[in-house]
Amino acid sequence: MTPKPKIQEPVITSITDLSPADSKWVTLRKISYIDQTGAFRTWEVASRKTRSQSAGIDAVAMGNILLHPSRPPATLVVIQYRPPLDAYTIEWPAGLVDEGETPEQAAVREFREETGYECRVVNVTPVLAADPGLSSANMKLVMVEARLGEGENEGDLPEQRLEDGENIERVVIPLSELYHRLVEYSKKERHVVSAKLFHWAAGMEFGRSMGEKYKI
Amino acid sequence: MTPKPKIQEPVITSITDLSPADSKWVTLRKISYIDQTGAFRTWEVASRKTRSQSAGIDAVAMGNILLHPSRPPATLVVIQYRPPLDAYTIEWPAGLVDEGETPEQAAVREFREETGYECRVVNVTPVLAADPGLSSANMKLVMVEARLGEGENEGDLPEQRLEDGENIERVVIPLSELYHRLVEYSKKERHVVSAKLFHWAAGMEFGRSMGEKYKI
Repeated sequence: MTPKPKIQEPVITSITDLSPADSKWVTLRKISYIDQTGAFRTWEVASRKTRSQSAGIDAVAMGNILLHPSRPPATLVVIQYRPPLDAYTIEWPAGLVDEGETPEQAAVREFREETGYECRVVNVTPVLAADPGLSSANMKLVMVEARLGEGENEGDLPEQRLEDGENIERVVIPLSELYHRLVEYSKKERHVVSAKLFHWAAGMEFGRSMGEKYKI
Repeated sequence: MTPKPKIQEPVITSITDLSPADSKWVTLRKISYIDQTGAFRTWEVASRKTRSQSAGIDAVAMGNILLHPSRPPATLVVIQYRPPLDAYTIEWPAGLVDEGETPEQAAVREFREETGYECRVVNVTPVLAADPGLSSANMKLVMVEARLGEGENEGDLPEQRLEDGENIERVVIPLSELYHRLVEYSKKERHVVSAKLFHWAAGMEFGRSMGEKYKI
């Protein structure tokens, strides 16, 4: 569906404690375990309640390369209001894996919904731990490529197919500028970059110059 | 303190729902908010209870480069049992920021505790969102360098200063092998790589070859 127009900045009206029995999406649990030394210990953990049983994976993120016939390779990032941070986050498109879907299928579907582009999967990572000290959440990074036509450009993005409640802005950034653009976004009021996307961009920036710096 | 010897594989004995009122480290909350279109909505969020008020940041991770006079540049990763995943995770050293500490101070302290090495901070990222759909957790990636002496090598790591309950294995990996070694670790039973570290390694691998592949 076409997103409804923005009429205001989002505002939080209340934050209340939530019992695990009353939650739909996220739960809080205490793990009791015996560690490597034989000691009894506990750990507090947040978990998603929605994990696909068939895939065993909560979510996919789509690292994406947009290939245009006459423009430098770019990537599309999405900017959306995220209530947990009360801020707009800059992330790669991502979504939960539905029951019965493979991570690859979820990636192609979510990429189409959030960006409007059809894409081709070029690489899928192993299962990764999203934030291993805090949560059981896991994910795969699915690298995808979208080939654009000569006439397709930033001012003419394809139509999104967003779900009710999704307001997702899209920004196309040349890969060579990604790291510095993310640093700039971080300086904007009420804007926060996703740690995963920033790590990739920082790694890319490091990789581009490491041969020169470290002679390898 | 010197870690106690490993005598067994860790085992989870129970997992129980935890009320936010009874937790010490993590809480679960419901956020009510008005979105950009004026609609009333809710979001479920996990939050750390321990955030440093002075720094406003939950945690730091130490992206690190070990510089040895005659060996290729390497990075040190830590492997530890993480109850949320019931698995050993491969991560960069990381830790919570204590009250009154700057992220830089926390990075140097935690790096010393977990690795035994003194380090120099070379770069600090903006505040980043650890897992923005699920939690309010935030962090900074602090890049550090440790200069090793000629005699210091993988078989002769300095003494850690671990807290009670920490059992942290250290592995030194040449940067040029990092990506492939993380893929290999992911294939080991009961081992999961941190998404943030993997994103950095994947970005580095991409950056090393992107000039060739995309002519930029």
